[in-house]
Amino acid sequence: MADHNALPLVILTEKFAALPGIGMKSAQRLAYHVMNMDMAEVESFAKALTDAKKNVHCCKICQNLTERDVCPICSDDSRDKSIICVVESPKDVSAFERTREFTGVYHVLHGLISPMDGIMPDSLKVKELLARISQGGVSEVIMATNPTVEGDATAMYIAGLLKPIGIKVTRLAFGLPVGGILEYADEITLFKALENRNDM
Amino acid sequence: MADHNALPLVILTEKFAALPGIGMKSAQRLAYHVMNMDMAEVESFAKALTDAKKNVHCCKICQNLTERDVCPICSDDSRDKSIICVVESPKDVSAFERTREFTGVYHVLHGLISPMDGIMPDSLKVKELLARISQGGVSEVIMATNPTVEGDATAMYIAGLLKPIGIKVTRLAFGLPVGGILEYADEITLFKALENRNDM
Repeated sequence: MADHNALPLVILTEKFAALPGIGMKSAQRLAYHVMNMDMAEVESFAKALTDAKKNVHCCKICQNLTERDVCPICSDDSRDKSIICVVESPKDVSAFERTREFTGVYHVLHGLISPMDGIMPDSLKVKELLARISQGGVSEVIMATNPTVEGDATAMYIAGLLKPIGIKVTRLAFGLPVGGILEYADEITLFKALENRNDM
Repeated sequence: MADHNALPLVILTEKFAALPGIGMKSAQRLAYHVMNMDMAEVESFAKALTDAKKNVHCCKICQNLTERDVCPICSDDSRDKSIICVVESPKDVSAFERTREFTGVYHVLHGLISPMDGIMPDSLKVKELLARISQGGVSEVIMATNPTVEGDATAMYIAGLLKPIGIKVTRLAFGLPVGGILEYADEITLFKALENRNDM
């Protein structure tokens, strides 16, 4: 922004623009919106930022974000601890929980292997997964990473570690999205849907 | 979000979702992004929010947002104080300044007349504009509100107040696409609109 703008506004705009998916114009609009909020609202927004950062950390079992030592899912006795669904990020846990169909537990990797971006297995919560499995009682690990190059590579890598120690490792099914239209499906999805076809 | 999410994260997500143009999914992504920021970055974001709100207020002459009593544009001796460009919001001042073609000064209304939303002339900085003009030395007032129903109504209303007291009132040329939003116009379109302004 040009120098006729008040400096605190320029700074706030830059903070918004540094967030993912927010460009300079949106950032400017958000900064002006803040100017029109009540002081109390702005302070509670500022407090929400620092509170979330201060009080939320990884569950010591599944690595999902939580305020507690052990998250509500890991401390829920009705969940089946023998099935672990391995996901990339906490948002994926939310997505599975919305289905209300999965009764096992999760493990959040906090990323996917991506040598191009310098993300190697050591930067992910893979050690924590192995430590958890080594305590026994796990019958199946579902690799629920995205069907992308990084997601597939991560699933293959973890499967390679777990299968030799006798753990059943499965991968989410790939196929047509329910409600999707066949003519808009890409070639690879369609090929996967054909390859994994089921008896009717 | 479901109750398995940490409360401070849910609160932060709601704060982001309350901002204009940010839906629940984006808000969730932003909240998770904050979790991955350094504590220092998060604190500086929180501080930027409250600093902007605390230290930025309206220029006592043009009502644009500034940290000072009188904004840099109003206190710039090289600007022509006899031409006042009347705009809806501070973003519009930024848009005109980017053209680098306008050497007059501004007046920010902080809104447009919109009876449907309960915004009447009294809620805008119209009194301040009249007070400013009554001090003399103003030869032209350019109505640079958006080419929308509200923008036109506001321009007509202010023209109706100023013409009887002998002030020349002009309107931006409709080089702007009708129904468009001023903030998104490119510099050349905006310059043409300024150059071809017409008497009202």
